[in-house]
Order: sequence, then C-alpha cells, then structure tokens
Amino acid sequence: MHVRAAVALAAGKPLEVTTVELDGPREGEVMVEIKATGVCHTDEFTLSGADPEGLFPAILGHEGAGVVVDIGKGVTSVKKGDHVIPLYTPECRQCPSCLSRKTNLCTAIRATQGQGLMPDGTSRFSFDGKPLHHYMGTSTFANYTVLPEIAVAKIREDAPFDKVCYIGCGVTTGIGAVINTAKVEPGAKAIVFGLGGIGLNVVQGLRLAGADMIIGVDINDDRKAWGERFGMTHFVNPTDAGKDLVPHLVDMTKSGADQIGGADYTFDCTGNVKVMRQALEACHRGWGQSIVIGVAPAGAEIATRPFQLVTGRVWKGTAFGGARGRTDVPKIVDWYMQGKIQIDPMITHVMPLGDINRAFELMRKGESIRGVVTF
Amino acid sequence: MHVRAAVALAAGKPLEVTTVELDGPREGEVMVEIKATGVCHTDEFTLSGADPEGLFPAILGHEGAGVVVDIGKGVTSVKKGDHVIPLYTPECRQCPSCLSRKTNLCTAIRATQGQGLMPDGTSRFSFDGKPLHHYMGTSTFANYTVLPEIAVAKIREDAPFDKVCYIGCGVTTGIGAVINTAKVEPGAKAIVFGLGGIGLNVVQGLRLAGADMIIGVDINDDRKAWGERFGMTHFVNPTDAGKDLVPHLVDMTKSGADQIGGADYTFDCTGNVKVMRQALEACHRGWGQSIVIGVAPAGAEIATRPFQLVTGRVWKGTAFGGARGRTDVPKIVDWYMQGKIQIDPMITHVMPLGDINRAFELMRKGESIRGVVTF
Repeated sequence: MHVRAAVALAAGKPLEVTTVELDGPREGEVMVEIKATGVCHTDEFTLSGADPEGLFPAILGHEGAGVVVDIGKGVTSVKKGDHVIPLYTPECRQCPSCLSRKTNLCTAIRATQGQGLMPDGTSRFSFDGKPLHHYMGTSTFANYTVLPEIAVAKIREDAPFDKVCYIGCGVTTGIGAVINTAKVEPGAKAIVFGLGGIGLNVVQGLRLAGADMIIGVDINDDRKAWGERFGMTHFVNPTDAGKDLVPHLVDMTKSGADQIGGADYTFDCTGNVKVMRQALEACHRGWGQSIVIGVAPAGAEIATRPFQLVTGRVWKGTAFGGARGRTDVPKIVDWYMQGKIQIDPMITHVMPLGDINRAFELMRKGESIRGVVTF
Repeated sequence: MHVRAAVALAAGKPLEVTTVELDGPREGEVMVEIKATGVCHTDEFTLSGADPEGLFPAILGHEGAGVVVDIGKGVTSVKKGDHVIPLYTPECRQCPSCLSRKTNLCTAIRATQGQGLMPDGTSRFSFDGKPLHHYMGTSTFANYTVLPEIAVAKIREDAPFDKVCYIGCGVTTGIGAVINTAKVEPGAKAIVFGLGGIGLNVVQGLRLAGADMIIGVDINDDRKAWGERFGMTHFVNPTDAGKDLVPHLVDMTKSGADQIGGADYTFDCTGNVKVMRQALEACHRGWGQSIVIGVAPAGAEIATRPFQLVTGRVWKGTAFGGARGRTDVPKIVDWYMQGKIQIDPMITHVMPLGDINRAFELMRKGESIRGVVTF
C-alpha cells in the first residue's frame, strides 16, 4: 500500500517527505497507523551521519503512538483497533535477557533490528522499487509502519497520541533511569547534567521518587525555569562554576551532619564524555551512583581514576530507562493520565509531517524541548 | 616503652629492623601486642615510593593480629587480654558513612589517618627522639602498636594469630568483594583477573557464594593449581589468548540458552588499568558487574566506551571488601575456624621480624602467596 513518509535518503541531507510502499504484516508482525511521533536527538544523531551504525536510505523515527490496523499470522497479544506505542526495545518475555529479571535489553530480534530489517531478514518499506531500511525496529516517520508483535505496547484508548508518543522514548528513558536503573529512594540528593528532553524527565522522575535535592546543570540559563517546572530545586550553569564545577556541586550537597558531600545519584543526559566523568566524580564517596543516559559520539571514551570506584562510586548506564516495554510503558501512560507525571508542557512544537525538517532544525538550535509530528 | 619494629626510613630502601619508642594509649586508644602480621602488596606499593600519599619515616604494616595489653581513658568495647585484628578501615558506627548503611568507608578518623597520625594529631612512635608516622592507622610491623578503639575488631581467642592476621586485609578484601560488594548469587558465572593473595580469596569467596563457573586469569601458569585448590573451575593464561582475551572469555561463558555470553561478575585483582577495562568488557550485556579491587599506579586512569555501561554493564570498586571491620571481621574469623574458608595453604612463608625484607623480596618475585612475620 502507499504510505506517506519522511525518507532519510542519505546522511546529512534533509528528510524527503514523499510516498513510499509498505507491505502488509507477515507472521508475528502488526501494522500500525502512526498518529503522532516525536523527533528525538537520536534520530538527528543518525541523520547527521555521526552514527556509525546508521543505514540509508531509511525511514527514521522511534517515538510514536498509533492504532493497530492489521495483524499477521499467529499474533495474539494485540488486535485491530488496539492503541499502541512502538518499542525500539522489544520485550519477547522468552529470551535469556527477558528471563534474567536483570535487564530490559531483550535480544530476540537484536541482530535483524540492527541491520534495519524485520526479524525474517527483509524490509516492508520500499521506494522506487528498492527496499528502504527500517530504523530501530520502529520507523515512525510514516503514517503506517510494520513492527514485530513483541515491539508494541498496548495502551489505554483515552490517552492522546500527540502526547503519549513521547513515552515511546524520552519520558520512559528519563523516568525509568530514576526508578528502574538508579532505584532512587525518598530523601535522596541528585544531580542532572543536561536539561533537555531527557534531563527534564529525569527531573520529574526524581520528584516522583521523593528526592530531596534535585540539582540541574545546563549551560543554557533558559533551562532553569524549565527544570523548576518539573521539580528541580537548584540550578548550576557550569560556565559560571568553571573548572571547579565538581567541587562546587559536592559543596552544595553537604549538610550539617555530612561534610563529605557528593550526590547520592547523578545522571548524564548530555552524551558528552567529559560531563560523564564530572557526573561520576560529583557522586558521594561510599555509595554515589552515576547513570549514563546520553549517547556519546562514535569512538568517544569515558575515563576516571579507579580510586573513584574503589572508594565506593558506581558507574552505570541505562537504555530505554531500564523499562520493559510491554510491561512498563502502559503503566507510564497511566501515570500521565492520572497526573502523576507531566508531558504537555514539554511538547513545545506540534506540526504536520511536511514540516518535519523544521522540527529537526528547532532541536539542533536548542529551541524546542520536544517537537511532535502529527499525521 | 621500647618496641621492636621494622622502620621504613625512606622510599625504595629496605626496612630497618631496630628498637623504637612507643607511647601508651591516650583517650579512646588501645595498645596491642602484635603477634603476627602479613606482608601485603600495599606495603610494598608504599615502600617502593610509588604511593603518592606515602609518608616517611614510618612503621608500615596493616595485616596484623594480637592481644590488647593496655587501654586509654574511655575505652569500653575492648579490654586487656582481648584478641583483636587491627582495622585500617575503622568502624565508628556514628559517622554519616557508618550510619548510611550503604558503605563500610567510615570517615571518623580519615583525615589524621591519611597524615600518618593518631586522631589527636600526634604520633605514638618515635625513633632517635623524632616522631615516626603511623601507616594506615595500624603500623603492624612492630611487636607493639597503638590504635584507636574503633580500629580494632575483637575476635575469638582460639584463632591462631599467624593465620587470622591475613583476615586483616587479603582474606576480607577478596571474600568481601564477592559477598558484600558484588553480592554474588548461587549459579553465577564469574571471572577473576589475577590469582595472587587477593584473587585467590575472591575465588574462595565465589565458591562460598555458590558460583557455578569461576574462571581464573593469570599470566603465571603456576597459579592454575593454586586457583583450583580454592574452587576455580577454569584457567586462562592471557598470553595464550592474546588480543582476543575478552571475546575468548565471553565465548567460554556462553551456554545453550545464552549465546550472548559474558560473566555475571568479574573482579580485577591486578591493579592494571588495562586489565580493569578487560574485566568490564568481559561482563554480560544487560547486567554484568565488574568490581575493581586492585590499586592502580598514581595517575593511571581506566577508560571504556560508554556504550558498555548503556548496555547494562556496571563498574564498581571495593575497599576492604566492603566489610565493616568490627562487625564482619569476627564473622570471617569464625568461618575460618569452622572450615568454611581456607587460609593455611595461602600462607606460604612464615619468618621472624628480622627476615621481613625477605618477605618483600619473595612477594616482588611472585614466589609467595602470603608471607607472614611472627613476633
């Protein structure tokens, strides 16, 4: 069938909004009508050519929401008409990773997903008679897409697509890093490096978890008001703190009884490996945990003195906030509908597919928190 | 009083076995007659001059066992005649760290201990009328020493000094890294890098914790038999594996159901930052934890791609095996007396204080697992 899509023909070029061909779902697959999709830094990372694993031509997009319109043979967990969020981290519930109870990183379709293909090794999208690559197993920059059944989370039908699409990546990544990966407890002191679309969700996750002190760090002073809207208690612009950023942050977290200082939890939401090091070293001696969320440039490495670890700091990372997609994403949708978390203010721009390149432009300039495309 | 001690007069020189002066215990302090002391790589690290925080002249030694012979004012937790193990990591049970329930790194006397002094800022040792530095708060290379009350663990009286002194550092560090820091569960797969005096105790800690697969890695083939004696199930000499050491180890840990591979837990007992990276990268995607135990040279840094963390590996460290000295050390002494853990075979050399420089020499050459000096 004909579908309308934004095609990434080559690295570094604007997306081309056009009509492409989409085949129906095969065994174990579903076709979803995408109603809305967020535009995320990871899409930009790939489109720019910086992602060494980026494949072209492809249909990008991984932060969508929509409705099941067709199911392939053997599909039992969703049916036509179900509202769903596509999952770039699937949840098969049968692989060693899903059964480990220790990780959300399902490996059932990892190899083919990385090759831009469906699990059977082929693509459903084509353009001018040639196959297009799928992207992150989701390809939400199209008004219809095909996904494996294990890569959709069924959600409630009263949730607005143009808001909950953000739960497909940014919201879950930020909140999940706090509750699944760091397991932050009430009363904790935390520092969030980078107050963009992920960092603000870390901030609201920390508020949800009952953190006492939520320090936001960003080189953009405009982000102070943004952070405060979601629960940030203190703001630091590293440009002001200069080379003494880490000691400054450690000092801020000292209290009467504790003159050692350092955060219980820190989160890197920048993708900058130097910031990742600062985040680790701003942790409390003995128990502080630093969680890497940001995606670093190809080849970049993090470094520190091992003494930082030997004296009790822990260096961790998170992908999709440690969330199991089919199990946890519907819960986060419920939290949004119950008002436990906010999404609406973060969606700063909504536009039709034809304007998608503008959404990328606003993001590059730091002028949007999240741009959403509706179909 | 006159005591017999091995004095480290300057970096890089042999110890001088001679008579020094020791003042009695002041308030909150105890005097201990040291009956035996191990000679550990950390003593050698400081004596060699490589330790940037090393102070001279000093009485080194931190792995002792002995008997309380005098107590200062206000001391209530031990009395004359009690058998004790000196603790370079004290346990005051009152500082923010002790009260955190998250770390063993008591900070009550950290500053003065680092300066080679008792908590009141003075030294009890002197030589030729000039003060000598204490070392790690313990200074066990003397037949009598003075320690803060919070830096001794009371142990059972039937435990042999020339064996349980090893619990003052190596045994507790290795076993504690497994049970306190990594919290290894039965059935786990683990890799131990470096089969020296710490690594072998990690191996027996893993056996105690019920690990299924315990892979030892050492460049010295002679250590294969040593590892097997304490529970090691597989041995790898990295010289044979070459550059492919990490993939080789990952392959070894694959099983029928799990073709991803990687260890659930890895332990660096080498102090080599390149090995620390291999230890992290040999961990299982999604949940593998790597524990840094070894002490790296001054200024050396660990590095990796952040992708290793984002895909679920955790980088941690441990000091004194995460053990609370006064609480956990007596339990480990009990385990030794009950036969749950072994110490005797690891003590390869026992000698009088006058031969202490030979103990260092055997250690440097890799010819001893643990040399012990008895008084």
